[in-house]
Amino acid sequence: MQFHLNGFEAGDPEVADPAERVRASGAFGPVPAEVDVLIIGCGPAGLNLAAQLSAFPDIKTCIVEQKPGRLLLGQADGIACRTMEMFHAYDFAERVMKEACWINETTFWKPDPHKPKTIVRSGRVQDVEDGLSEFPHVVLNQARVHDHFLDVMRRSAAKLEPYYARRVLDLRIDPAARFEDHAVSVRLERLDPSHEGRFETVKARYVVGCDGARSTVRKAIGQELHGDSANHAWGVMDVLAVTDFPDIRFKSLIQSASDGSGLIIPREGGYLVRIYVELTALEAGERVASRKITADDVVAKAQRILKPYTLDVKEIAWWSVYEIGQRLADKFDDAPVAGTETRLPRVFIAGDACHTHSPKAGQGMNVSMQDTFNLGWKLAAVLRKRAAPHLLHTYSAERHAVAKELIEFDREWAAIIASGNRHGEALDPAKTQDYFVRHGRYTAGTATHYPPSILTAEPSHQHLAEGFVIGKRFPSAPVIRLGDAKPVHLGHVVKADGRFRLFAFAGAEDPAAANSRLRALCDFLAEAGDSPIRKYTAKDADIDSVIDVRAVFQQAHRDLALEAMPLLLMPRKGRYGLRDYEKMFCPDLKAGHDIFTMRGIDRAMGCLVIVRPDQFVAQVLPLDAHGQLAAFFDRFMLPAS
Amino acid sequence: MQFHLNGFEAGDPEVADPAERVRASGAFGPVPAEVDVLIIGCGPAGLNLAAQLSAFPDIKTCIVEQKPGRLLLGQADGIACRTMEMFHAYDFAERVMKEACWINETTFWKPDPHKPKTIVRSGRVQDVEDGLSEFPHVVLNQARVHDHFLDVMRRSAAKLEPYYARRVLDLRIDPAARFEDHAVSVRLERLDPSHEGRFETVKARYVVGCDGARSTVRKAIGQELHGDSANHAWGVMDVLAVTDFPDIRFKSLIQSASDGSGLIIPREGGYLVRIYVELTALEAGERVASRKITADDVVAKAQRILKPYTLDVKEIAWWSVYEIGQRLADKFDDAPVAGTETRLPRVFIAGDACHTHSPKAGQGMNVSMQDTFNLGWKLAAVLRKRAAPHLLHTYSAERHAVAKELIEFDREWAAIIASGNRHGEALDPAKTQDYFVRHGRYTAGTATHYPPSILTAEPSHQHLAEGFVIGKRFPSAPVIRLGDAKPVHLGHVVKADGRFRLFAFAGAEDPAAANSRLRALCDFLAEAGDSPIRKYTAKDADIDSVIDVRAVFQQAHRDLALEAMPLLLMPRKGRYGLRDYEKMFCPDLKAGHDIFTMRGIDRAMGCLVIVRPDQFVAQVLPLDAHGQLAAFFDRFMLPAS
Ligand SMILES: Cc1cc2nc3c(=O)[nH]c(=O)nc-3n(C[C@H](O)[C@H](O)[C@H](O)COP(=O)(O)OP(=O)(O)OC[C@H]3O[C@@H](n4cnc5c(N)ncnc54)[C@H](O)[C@@H]3O)c2cc1C
Ligand SMILES: Cc1cc2nc3c(=O)[nH]c(=O)nc-3n(C[C@H](O)[C@H](O)[C@H](O)COP(=O)(O)OP(=O)(O)OC[C@H]3O[C@@H](n4cnc5c(N)ncnc54)[C@H](O)[C@@H]3O)c2cc1C
Repeated sequence: MQFHLNGFEAGDPEVADPAERVRASGAFGPVPAEVDVLIIGCGPAGLNLAAQLSAFPDIKTCIVEQKPGRLLLGQADGIACRTMEMFHAYDFAERVMKEACWINETTFWKPDPHKPKTIVRSGRVQDVEDGLSEFPHVVLNQARVHDHFLDVMRRSAAKLEPYYARRVLDLRIDPAARFEDHAVSVRLERLDPSHEGRFETVKARYVVGCDGARSTVRKAIGQELHGDSANHAWGVMDVLAVTDFPDIRFKSLIQSASDGSGLIIPREGGYLVRIYVELTALEAGERVASRKITADDVVAKAQRILKPYTLDVKEIAWWSVYEIGQRLADKFDDAPVAGTETRLPRVFIAGDACHTHSPKAGQGMNVSMQDTFNLGWKLAAVLRKRAAPHLLHTYSAERHAVAKELIEFDREWAAIIASGNRHGEALDPAKTQDYFVRHGRYTAGTATHYPPSILTAEPSHQHLAEGFVIGKRFPSAPVIRLGDAKPVHLGHVVKADGRFRLFAFAGAEDPAAANSRLRALCDFLAEAGDSPIRKYTAKDADIDSVIDVRAVFQQAHRDLALEAMPLLLMPRKGRYGLRDYEKMFCPDLKAGHDIFTMRGIDRAMGCLVIVRPDQFVAQVLPLDAHGQLAAFFDRFMLPAS
Repeated sequence: MQFHLNGFEAGDPEVADPAERVRASGAFGPVPAEVDVLIIGCGPAGLNLAAQLSAFPDIKTCIVEQKPGRLLLGQADGIACRTMEMFHAYDFAERVMKEACWINETTFWKPDPHKPKTIVRSGRVQDVEDGLSEFPHVVLNQARVHDHFLDVMRRSAAKLEPYYARRVLDLRIDPAARFEDHAVSVRLERLDPSHEGRFETVKARYVVGCDGARSTVRKAIGQELHGDSANHAWGVMDVLAVTDFPDIRFKSLIQSASDGSGLIIPREGGYLVRIYVELTALEAGERVASRKITADDVVAKAQRILKPYTLDVKEIAWWSVYEIGQRLADKFDDAPVAGTETRLPRVFIAGDACHTHSPKAGQGMNVSMQDTFNLGWKLAAVLRKRAAPHLLHTYSAERHAVAKELIEFDREWAAIIASGNRHGEALDPAKTQDYFVRHGRYTAGTATHYPPSILTAEPSHQHLAEGFVIGKRFPSAPVIRLGDAKPVHLGHVVKADGRFRLFAFAGAEDPAAANSRLRALCDFLAEAGDSPIRKYTAKDADIDSVIDVRAVFQQAHRDLALEAMPLLLMPRKGRYGLRDYEKMFCPDLKAGHDIFTMRGIDRAMGCLVIVRPDQFVAQVLPLDAHGQLAAFFDRFMLPAS
């Protein structure tokens, strides 16, 4: 898709008239007085959480934002492969694939050894290593990412719309409240001209502060960000420009001899480009605002960095200057570290509210969304009485570790791409490129690895499926669906619907045989008294509504008879008791994709992989470890009433 | 995507609340008194034409429909690969891919030789041969296809909405009118309760009757359908049902011993199924309505055909009975056969208005849409003064030949799948399966081959690219875009925007060299007095707005320097003169897709492929045949004023 040729226009590029591209959003009237979850802030973290909770109309969710309406442009743009996998869980990955700009290769530029005042290309690498994800690394205006979440919310069962022009002033937690109570009171100020100066109070069972780097919620729960103070200023701009720089449609890292570093990010629509430039070192404690840097300064700097190439900027759609700072809160909820045994968390912070970093590794938006993707299903499970509330402790534990690692990575990365300028060190483009490649998995967002906890098992059976690493995200692979021979991606069955998945990879024997371990597992799940499916699924609910079982066979799909398979794998559902034929899969042998080989699955034994609602591998077990399977869920699930 | 589990619901399945799935459509107020094109009928043919014309806000288009609003369910559902390619030109193929049911394999069932009252599977074939198209064969409710076109129209530059509740009564062509005049007067009756009995008159330069098998427009221009009278009745139903028939999610052709044939078509959402059953032979002249066949009869028949399998129908979303008839009009416009030299056509008929056939080959909707895809750009080109009006004669010539072939195919096919029952012949499942496979390309819609005309050249240079057959649709192939290393499909640059494409496949030499034939071609196109680009493109228009040049190189993308290429391949466009970097491509050698090999392109010589706005190959020429290139466009194009 090509667009923005005649100037940047906000909103959906598939609508021809720019005046109709931006769809109105926003709820009218006063905010509800009492809700289950109050989300503060319509950034990527808040909107992702709202989108997740909007799938559950039985949960009363409210999202507020101080701005008068939706974001139209600017801020982050990088969308890691892992984020695309998550978008697929919300069913809008294919729209982002179409609209976004794909980052296919990254190029590296250094001072020309023969003419050091100009740059030459020093290298070129594939941006994402082969096989890391079925999705590409793309870039798209953060505003459009917001739009997609707003669409999910609007179309959802709960039909959520944000309440705009509400600023959170403070919040108070009633220390005497019982677990069931709406213990958190939040005071809001209305900012829209017709209600200016009026206040509202919302009582909530849970509050999630997705209110960005200057988070009010963070302060209210006594947390602060620790870390480097910013001491280096960068400029960023989204421009329409004419240039003879040949890599203008590649992500390009540029190290100039005497004007610092630059970064080119090609953008959606084929014409727009984001350019980051290193501006200046700041004095200790100095803020970048004091330098009174203008858009012209940023353009001039970009022009110097790009020499000998020309840059003729025709339109600046958005620009900003900012300081780099890597900072982190100690804990992402209000339960004191010492008190997790006795105090359940009621207030959470997510995204920039608990960690900030430089934007150039493109992590801010991605990690913020992964924060609330981790939290959303847990809140839903607790509110819907499927899980015990102590599950909520895992949010801060899991995400704090990820943020810490991110910040270390970011600090190292920022230093590398700024090196040589700041400290007068010799430039080392080879080192930059090497670091970039080694850390590709990190940047793609697929390196996240949650440590053992009630949710993530000790890896005692990891050898049964080396490619499904316990604690990491479930990496998809192509398969053929047995019921209709459709080529699909196995991982794409994991939707943002709050369900756990059991992937049963059959062993070498005939899966249909009376004594196969797959059949034994299905019998256990369908009939045993301690079957987690029987235990946690309400009598009148569909059998796959809490735990969704899928089987993957080793045989080619034409060599298996659907009708011989255990009935649990063709469950009858809904008010008519219709059969669901989408539970069984085979390797795509014709296309040369054998998932058993790709994911290192033990062919003799097969295995069972438990996948969390947020697409992470929770456990790998032998097919016949029925007791361990039951025990896993018993750690945090509540029996259906 | 899974949906319809608890009952069929019309509209967009991505909206959770069924009450909000159907988006209102329809224009208010009286129809305009004078238009360039009046389209009659909101079936697939009419909506496709409206969608095509809606890209041109300078053309005044109006579409009317007698029904009170949009179609919500029923009618056709098969979407051939070729139709998906066309949907891609409108940018909604990826949404259909997601929502539709994919037909991956087709199975064949015959009477069990040992128990002839029951059926057994006799065969199973891949539905579409490898490499035929980059798109799958899918099925989706015709109503949803309409919705996608309505979306295109609504979002378009012209913002078209249909005028519903308008029945065309008659039309009159002013014989004295000049070419520029609005010579056709159409009388409409309003059917909406608030305006019932009122009449409107529209004057149009062109009228297109997309008004179905009982077309009023066809009668008004003195055409009639000729062909077999129907003598065999079929029933069709879209059902939610429980069955133990194992191939219920496959397209299945069933020949029973004594209950006739049946056809299973799995449908979108994973639960819905369409079942066709052969009902009864009719007497000569008898209409099926006289038999008073009920839905229960259709169900009972399906149950008998499927024995020994059970079919427990829970809900019938839609059903119909109909007669098979293969019928065809002699000509698809109002210009008399004898008068094409002197009389230009003003009234056209398309789709079922000019050809009808049995639905089981799944061709009706597909061929109807291809009719207007052929006509739409021609009308636009003439109305926008890009092409001479005699171009319009090619519509009837090209599409009549296709319809004739289709009808012959359909007659043969209908006979085969009904054989053995009707005439008491021995069943021959092997013959059915064999015929099915041989005719796969036909069913996929890719066999259409337009004969030589002013638009389609004699194949004198076909040997330069055996895989781009002159007169057939341009088959896409994967390539890498030079400007950003993105893997893309070359054919996907052919959008429904009325532009011609020149694909220049470079020869073996360095394309950047001063003496390369590619550079010579670019120089000719950019500068020569007889360059079709210079001749037909208005001075103030973008250089690619009439004829869009794309180059494909033989070298891997990392071995070529973008900056060394002819500037015509990085043209400056729009109000800022921004460069377009999406004109150059390389083979995807890493993935093993060399387009030069795949399409049989002469590596030494290279070649130039001219592709029509409707994605058909018009000509294949040597790269240096500048004169022949100019001459091709001179046959029908008008110089820009
Ligand atoms: C100006 C700017 C430029 C940026 N540029 C880049 C970039 O170039 N590259 C990059 O990768 N990242 C960039 N970022 C960072 C990136 O946008 C964030 O990492 C990402 O948006 C974090 O998401 P979030 O949801 O946690 O917070 P945010 O997106 O910051 O969202 C927080 C929301 O909460 C609202 N809010 C705050 N306080 C209150 C309150 N008291 N009451 C009600 N609402 C409140 C805010 O208005 C805001 O909408 C930029 C951020 C900003 C602000
Ligand atoms: C009831 C039915 C069932 C079908 N079932 C199948 C099937 O099972 N499988 C299959 O492949 N195909 C089926 N078809 C055929 C398939 O739908 C058609 O081939 C396809 O729709 C043709 O498209 P079209 O645009 O040419 O005509 P249509 O889709 O018929 O559209 C014509 C439109 O013109 C309108 N119209 C007619 N006369 C006037 C007038 N005087 N004024 C204003 N508007 C008018 C009609 O209301 C209609 O909306 C069925 C068709 C019908 C009608």
